Amino acid sequence: MEYRRVKDQENYDDLSQKDVESLSGRSLSSANATASGLSSAGGSKGKSSWKLKSVVTLALTLLTSSQAILIVWSKRAGKYEYSVTTANFSVEALKCLLSLAALFRTWNRHGVTDDNRLTTSFDEVSVYPIPAVLYMVKNLLQYYIFAYVDAPAYQILKNLNIISTGVLYRIILKKKLSEIQWAAFVLLCAGCTTAQLNPSSDHVLQTPIQGWMMAIVMALLSGFAGVYTEAIIKKRPSRNINVQNFWLYIFGVIFNLVAICVQDYDAVMNKGFFHGYSFITVLMILNHALSGIAVSMVMKYADNIVKVYSTSVAMLLTAVVSVFLFSFHLSLAFFLGSTVVSVSVYLHSIGKLQPQK
Amino acid sequence: MEYRRVKDQENYDDLSQKDVESLSGRSLSSANATASGLSSAGGSKGKSSWKLKSVVTLALTLLTSSQAILIVWSKRAGKYEYSVTTANFSVEALKCLLSLAALFRTWNRHGVTDDNRLTTSFDEVSVYPIPAVLYMVKNLLQYYIFAYVDAPAYQILKNLNIISTGVLYRIILKKKLSEIQWAAFVLLCAGCTTAQLNPSSDHVLQTPIQGWMMAIVMALLSGFAGVYTEAIIKKRPSRNINVQNFWLYIFGVIFNLVAICVQDYDAVMNKGFFHGYSFITVLMILNHALSGIAVSMVMKYADNIVKVYSTSVAMLLTAVVSVFLFSFHLSLAFFLGSTVVSVSVYLHSIGKLQPQK
Repeated sequence: MEYRRVKDQENYDDLSQKDVESLSGRSLSSANATASGLSSAGGSKGKSSWKLKSVVTLALTLLTSSQAILIVWSKRAGKYEYSVTTANFSVEALKCLLSLAALFRTWNRHGVTDDNRLTTSFDEVSVYPIPAVLYMVKNLLQYYIFAYVDAPAYQILKNLNIISTGVLYRIILKKKLSEIQWAAFVLLCAGCTTAQLNPSSDHVLQTPIQGWMMAIVMALLSGFAGVYTEAIIKKRPSRNINVQNFWLYIFGVIFNLVAICVQDYDAVMNKGFFHGYSFITVLMILNHALSGIAVSMVMKYADNIVKVYSTSVAMLLTAVVSVFLFSFHLSLAFFLGSTVVSVSVYLHSIGKLQPQK
Repeated sequence: MEYRRVKDQENYDDLSQKDVESLSGRSLSSANATASGLSSAGGSKGKSSWKLKSVVTLALTLLTSSQAILIVWSKRAGKYEYSVTTANFSVEALKCLLSLAALFRTWNRHGVTDDNRLTTSFDEVSVYPIPAVLYMVKNLLQYYIFAYVDAPAYQILKNLNIISTGVLYRIILKKKLSEIQWAAFVLLCAGCTTAQLNPSSDHVLQTPIQGWMMAIVMALLSGFAGVYTEAIIKKRPSRNINVQNFWLYIFGVIFNLVAICVQDYDAVMNKGFFHGYSFITVLMILNHALSGIAVSMVMKYADNIVKVYSTSVAMLLTAVVSVFLFSFHLSLAFFLGSTVVSVSVYLHSIGKLQPQK
């Protein structure tokens, strides 16, 4: 049960970060044209975009790896004393506030322009809640999948996200990966799974066909939401990212408000909104908010592939840091998986040098 | 103990296949020149050499995978009833006989030429017993390493052979692998190890430094012997392979005769040379002899890298066939390792297309 709450927390957090563009051919090809325009921009602009990309990727990796450690810490301090829905709401609200704060700064410096004004057309904003719906469906499925799959097997099956993201990235955003990058992507999935192997992992082989189907559908929903968010954000490359984030996150605020009313209305009314919050809870909320913003930044300045690599490397970093913090023991499988993931990162980078083979 | 006897059998078998060239720069560079001359030969010659390479590689893979199955079968039929040293002697003798038979056929068809006559110079033959010495040292070390390393950990450490072969192949034969092929080689090692993971594999992480040192030395000795054999055989590319094999194997016959006298003299004298031989024993001897010849052929027409890939894929094939024959259960680790090995094979082949990056 505790495990499921952690999962919910992760998903709710994701919920607000993913948003979707109505996928008319027109909007996508324009997004593509701009994306390739950006990547081919040489000189100082190309260099500064490379720098920005590196910084947001590093930020996402560090924030994600400390995220998992904070979750373990908050669990060590006892069970969740607070309601998870209020924490998720706080994360969304904080992200909105941070986006607005950044916007105020921009308005003060550069004035209000077409690209950074908050008001927008229905056409622009109408697609933003779509991934929230995709995530709701995924979260609903999650309650049913545990009828067929146990928790360690679910952890293994979650790695299907890596493959589904790659496939949907190719199909929906029509961006090509080289043969070497595809091989690297398969390796990333195999390596992450290997690193997570434990004596009960073999349960996954007894997963019935219903469990596999649901896991695949969940992976597709999650990959779809990620790729859609990239499409929305990249569709208007000159639009200020903080405006895009505000509209992305405001739906997270609304959906989590609904979740509080449905799940934790009584607890909040009787014990108060912030009941059971500790210092670690506040740190977790801060971390989730910042990593949510980092995901948006990666979508804007890099892509879903970078996001997947970043979170995979974060998973390995978490395990290494856990050795020191929680005297966690690294298995041989972890070393092998890490080796495969490292080779995958290397291949992905050298695969880029010859994208047109 | 039984395990160690199987190991010995494997090593004695290898013993006769590996031979070494005195590594003067002159002889190696001439071997290289010829090797590159062979590979650049276009047209029908290039095509037929590619075909020959494929056939010997396939033969080696199939023979090696059935080898392990025959060992399991002979174990199922009970403990080894025969003396392993006499079986090894029979393998070497059979290989010599088969090489001579092939030579007679060649002499009848094409007559005796400089390239296919059996008589040879001391200069040519003097290097052939060297790998036998390397293997003796390796086999001696094997008795000591078990003081520091248990059997499952030893199985894992044996995969260091893959890396040592790649490194020595690069250093001694001065042949370049592309960046992608190096990455593929690291993956081959990680993939094979992953496929062999079992609950007691983590013991390897408790291996003391002495165990690691000995494992590394053993991997280097074994890789060295393999690469040396390739150097000897390739040094005289026009020399008939059966003459080269005869000289390679005759030392195996001699060394195994010594081994019989040292280890099993009493048993052979009292119970007879072929005591305890069954139909499976005969099949095993036949298989070992043929796969020994296949290794020589791979050294002549392909290289050590192909040999390593071939035996790795054979290891996976053995496991798959064992599912049907011995109702062996495949673990998730096996599937992950097989995926990584498959990607490695793929990368190795596409890495070839652009050797000069």
